[in-house]
Amino acid sequence: MDIPSYISGYVDGEGCFSVSIRPRPQNNLKWEVVASFAVAQNRDKVEVLKIMKDYFGYGSFRSNKTDNTIKYEIRSIEVLMKKVIPHFRRYPLQSGRQKDFVIFAEICGRINKRRHLTKEGLIEIVKLRSQLSFVSKRVYTNEMIIQQLSKKKI
Amino acid sequence: MDIPSYISGYVDGEGCFSVSIRPRPQNNLKWEVVASFAVAQNRDKVEVLKIMKDYFGYGSFRSNKTDNTIKYEIRSIEVLMKKVIPHFRRYPLQSGRQKDFVIFAEICGRINKRRHLTKEGLIEIVKLRSQLSFVSKRVYTNEMIIQQLSKKKI
Repeated sequence: MDIPSYISGYVDGEGCFSVSIRPRPQNNLKWEVVASFAVAQNRDKVEVLKIMKDYFGYGSFRSNKTDNTIKYEIRSIEVLMKKVIPHFRRYPLQSGRQKDFVIFAEICGRINKRRHLTKEGLIEIVKLRSQLSFVSKRVYTNEMIIQQLSKKKI
Repeated sequence: MDIPSYISGYVDGEGCFSVSIRPRPQNNLKWEVVASFAVAQNRDKVEVLKIMKDYFGYGSFRSNKTDNTIKYEIRSIEVLMKKVIPHFRRYPLQSGRQKDFVIFAEICGRINKRRHLTKEGLIEIVKLRSQLSFVSKRVYTNEMIIQQLSKKKI
């Protein structure tokens, strides 16, 4: 058994790469960008999440008692850049979701270069994010964010 | 990338080993036993199902237009015995579901030896099946099947 390949298979089915953008009045641009790699699982499969935590050497668990699931998540841009993204470049997802991973990796690279702190950089990230095919319902739509950013004189 | 390990990871998240027992008046015991290995997927991830079909060299696809999913399934006991079970012995599931796989493999072994065609053999299979932890709602409960079999004078 090759554990890295197993992890990619598991994540291809159950994992999620997401970029959330939400209001944060303290920030200069009033928006905050959070990239996240997460896998949520019923408690009966928590072993797999532990294997991932051992493998990536990082990440947090959060329990959702309502639906009896546990979520393993990495939000640290440093760990995403140093551990998660190189892993999925070496052991790529075999499904159409790989396309989403490529966009996610591009956005993380930009966050790592602090481009999300400039108006133009953040607008580019919002546009990149709109290319993700696998998206949960957005509270703040891309249009809404771009419109608000455009008004700002920075 | 090691494709067999990737497949085990994917199946650990998304796959299903099941044994269904349903009425079949033509059969001597009036019940039919069907073992099945299946993975259902949204259409956007059909690539992974194709990789599995290439790998196992067998299996059928069925489309469910209502929920936009495709199901890849192997029911042939010969293929389950020769391809699927040896694969998951060599590249085992890492979650608690492995326990279910072991029971599934035991039941398939018995079907392969045609034990499901004798009353005692079928009752044993029903009892083994009751140890599966991951089970969809049963139309015909184990108690119902055992009760009906017990009445039969064979």
